[in-house]
Amino acid sequence: MSLPPAPTTDLDPAARALLLDAVHFDGQGLVACIAQQHDTGEVLMMAWMNRAALAETLATGRVTYWSRSRQALWRKGESSGQVQHLVDMRLDCDGDTLLALVDQTGVACHTGRRNCFFRALRGGELTEIAAPEVAPEALYGR
Amino acid sequence: MSLPPAPTTDLDPAARALLLDAVHFDGQGLVACIAQQHDTGEVLMMAWMNRAALAETLATGRVTYWSRSRQALWRKGESSGQVQHLVDMRLDCDGDTLLALVDQTGVACHTGRRNCFFRALRGGELTEIAAPEVAPEALYGR
Repeated sequence: MSLPPAPTTDLDPAARALLLDAVHFDGQGLVACIAQQHDTGEVLMMAWMNRAALAETLATGRVTYWSRSRQALWRKGESSGQVQHLVDMRLDCDGDTLLALVDQTGVACHTGRRNCFFRALRGGELTEIAAPEVAPEALYGR
Repeated sequence: MSLPPAPTTDLDPAARALLLDAVHFDGQGLVACIAQQHDTGEVLMMAWMNRAALAETLATGRVTYWSRSRQALWRKGESSGQVQHLVDMRLDCDGDTLLALVDQTGVACHTGRRNCFFRALRGGELTEIAAPEVAPEALYGR
């Protein structure tokens, strides 16, 4: 797969520290990160990063979150192969939310759907508005 | 301004309750909500909703958040006029993040920028990659 340029990943550590230091991590040391497919604009998912996860993401160009359930770094795609290559990392006005423009390999959602936001009201019912593109068993094994 | 159809706002209270009951509010009773411009895909902002804010948003079609700093309902645009009309509300796979597709009047960011995600690394510096379209004083008074 050919990747788009990744302007944030070829910076020296001092430049990356400027972004790291501008983030206002919350009381648990976390910041929300929205992942958006860089070319289509599709919002894929939202997850959390601690400072180490953000530092690794910026240094490697592979998006890494902090798993609150596992209390461990979560290198997106390490089990499923559905990695996210970082294209650009943006910080919001008050420093408590990140927007990661990414190039998503395969699907972002653990249910096998392209994105996680597949439930909405339709015809008076809470409905799944997108179907899985991949069986979860194919991503994670049984 | 002509508005797009708003499929979630003409539902009966029982239908809205299905979505409200599917949300996993956190320990503070809050859920993260990403606002995305429905037609361009631009991610505008991320803020928080409690159950009352989400209920009001679904009932009125005007996006209402919970202001953590003011500890009050925050009817987006009530001071600035920069309202968000709800087009569709989507819930993610694990129920802890909402994606609101909206039609944003004017600008979403309190700095006068169209969206809040305007800081990024460029040339070794943390740079503002978008300029204000409106002076904040014009939005909120001096």
